[in-house]
Amino acid sequence: MGIGTNILGYSNSKVNSFVKKIIDNGSISTLNSNLDFELSKILIGIHPWSDKVIFSRTGAEANAIAIRVARAFSGRDEIAICGYHGWHDWYLSTNLENPKNLNYIHLEGLSTLGIPKRLRGITHPFKYNDINSFKKLLSKNRNIGTVFMEVERNEKPKNNFLKKIREITSKKNIILIFDECTSGFREVYGGLHKKYNVNPDIAVFGKSLGNGIPLTAVIGKKNIMESATNSFISSTFWTDATGPAAGISTLKEMKSLQSWKKISSTGKKIKKFWKYLSKKYKIKISIYGIDAMPSFRFNHKLHLYLRTYLTQEFLKKKILATNSVYCSIYHDRYLKIYFKELDKIFSKISKLVNNKSILNELQYPVSIPGFSRLN
Amino acid sequence: MGIGTNILGYSNSKVNSFVKKIIDNGSISTLNSNLDFELSKILIGIHPWSDKVIFSRTGAEANAIAIRVARAFSGRDEIAICGYHGWHDWYLSTNLENPKNLNYIHLEGLSTLGIPKRLRGITHPFKYNDINSFKKLLSKNRNIGTVFMEVERNEKPKNNFLKKIREITSKKNIILIFDECTSGFREVYGGLHKKYNVNPDIAVFGKSLGNGIPLTAVIGKKNIMESATNSFISSTFWTDATGPAAGISTLKEMKSLQSWKKISSTGKKIKKFWKYLSKKYKIKISIYGIDAMPSFRFNHKLHLYLRTYLTQEFLKKKILATNSVYCSIYHDRYLKIYFKELDKIFSKISKLVNNKSILNELQYPVSIPGFSRLN
Repeated sequence: MGIGTNILGYSNSKVNSFVKKIIDNGSISTLNSNLDFELSKILIGIHPWSDKVIFSRTGAEANAIAIRVARAFSGRDEIAICGYHGWHDWYLSTNLENPKNLNYIHLEGLSTLGIPKRLRGITHPFKYNDINSFKKLLSKNRNIGTVFMEVERNEKPKNNFLKKIREITSKKNIILIFDECTSGFREVYGGLHKKYNVNPDIAVFGKSLGNGIPLTAVIGKKNIMESATNSFISSTFWTDATGPAAGISTLKEMKSLQSWKKISSTGKKIKKFWKYLSKKYKIKISIYGIDAMPSFRFNHKLHLYLRTYLTQEFLKKKILATNSVYCSIYHDRYLKIYFKELDKIFSKISKLVNNKSILNELQYPVSIPGFSRLN
Repeated sequence: MGIGTNILGYSNSKVNSFVKKIIDNGSISTLNSNLDFELSKILIGIHPWSDKVIFSRTGAEANAIAIRVARAFSGRDEIAICGYHGWHDWYLSTNLENPKNLNYIHLEGLSTLGIPKRLRGITHPFKYNDINSFKKLLSKNRNIGTVFMEVERNEKPKNNFLKKIREITSKKNIILIFDECTSGFREVYGGLHKKYNVNPDIAVFGKSLGNGIPLTAVIGKKNIMESATNSFISSTFWTDATGPAAGISTLKEMKSLQSWKKISSTGKKIKKFWKYLSKKYKIKISIYGIDAMPSFRFNHKLHLYLRTYLTQEFLKKKILATNSVYCSIYHDRYLKIYFKELDKIFSKISKLVNNKSILNELQYPVSIPGFSRLN
């Protein structure tokens, strides 16, 4: 589903009709679109702790804005991170100190090729749900002015982890940024932080916000956002109006359908079926992720081979699938077909794993860990 | 014109109809669109020195990709720049060494607020048409692995400036990047470097490439682009297909209309009329920029006030105008109205300047130098 963009399904007619109207009217000008204001009001209405919004067009770029604002306010350059925040230098520089730094907070094997070496030590990782290591990190690095994290990815917060992070950052005048690009609008209408009743200073939204039309947003508290007024933050395409048009119509449609409830229910059914297949075929898997975005991992040293095989066999049936599902409101009607094919594939895998013949069954190169983009 | 995006005018029906078709078909997927391939082939066809393309959605982000690729290849972190290349840390860090560094290559008064201090000295400016200062810069900073520059902005290249830059960078194994976001497709069909017969290693396109739909592109030589294969460069919205759809239809329409000739001819007429008015009303101005993108400056200490007054008076007639024009293929038909109103405004300015009463005539705050974005 567009790497998580299309909660309302591909080519949603309500979103499309507003976007196409805006295109017909001329979708760009040298001046900001009035739709920016409308969408800002909606986002601030959903998140009353926030007062100001900056729109951009990709998640990594929105995160770069959030960092700029936070550094301008705090005056401190170093950042503590916990989650996935894109491909920019500030994030990948985490691995300059130790090439495995990003392994345990998100993706394995992220290279520092092309990252300026002097950024070493500017971004520090901390482990989710480990409040003691977080405290140690802050006391060891007094120049940390920003904590950038995902509210929840693979595990649920334990022992009031998020509340403690909020308390500590407030006490130390550290800006707390929640990256809600992936988590936003999936479990609740708005940022996932609403569910846990913990408000950040800045939150970043992307992916599902425009149901597939490029749009991301940085929302934040007034005094913090205004600190960046004298910084130069601008791109030509931020005056594009297709983005905010898509955003306005997507949020309206999500609210009216209560899409977060639908996709969470679909995801629960998927998790349940994976568990059932795992038992039925005695294939050990670990299931993780929020209900609306379930994933599993084969507990097997050939995980990547098995995952590749899974996709290969689905593609033979013209189904695009892997070990994760970004649920959309339309997935429910296809679950029967998906479950039927997945049952057959798990059955084949159970025989393959026992025979150790999986390597002979791949007709394509094995999938790589993480995510790769075609140039 | 959308800060230079809309050479084919606002809401061009040919571009729109293809983009809307793609939206109806579902404009995003987890996989790259086949339109990426089609547009790549067109861009490489126009620039036969290039072999590979990466698409993104804003100019600053495309420049960040180009930098990552160049650093991955050269292994050297420092960059020499000459022109405007966006809002990201690597560019604005130029002013950490000296807050006036960026003044003489593009914009005045760019702040380093929120830029990590350890980036000081990583990006070095050099002056356009000053080959000796360029040579000195390189011999003083052996860690410069990339030269990032605009082909031409306010002045024409003199004494084979571009050819000399190419010779020196080739000899020293420095990657030469041309930022063609502003200059591309305005004077020739493709990068402005085609006119001067000087090929870079990487070129960046944006602005006019999708006639207002967010789309930017990095094109480059095979061995250089492939050096970044192991680097992680990815954003969700780069699988959006509205961008390449807009790109394909824009380039097709530009080629068929020979739009670069039309807009250059319009710009020439505008420059000529400015010169005429300057003489007629004895208002000293400097005219600069390529024909398709003419600008002028009041040679007066109150330049910014006069520019604000100009916009104010045009707005009263429901015309959006300032001291620069990004020519579109439709401007020609509005020149009569524009010239008539501009004549009246110059007439008023000539009286105001002599009476020094301009400060009383502004009904709005004076415009700031450079460019500011509304949050």
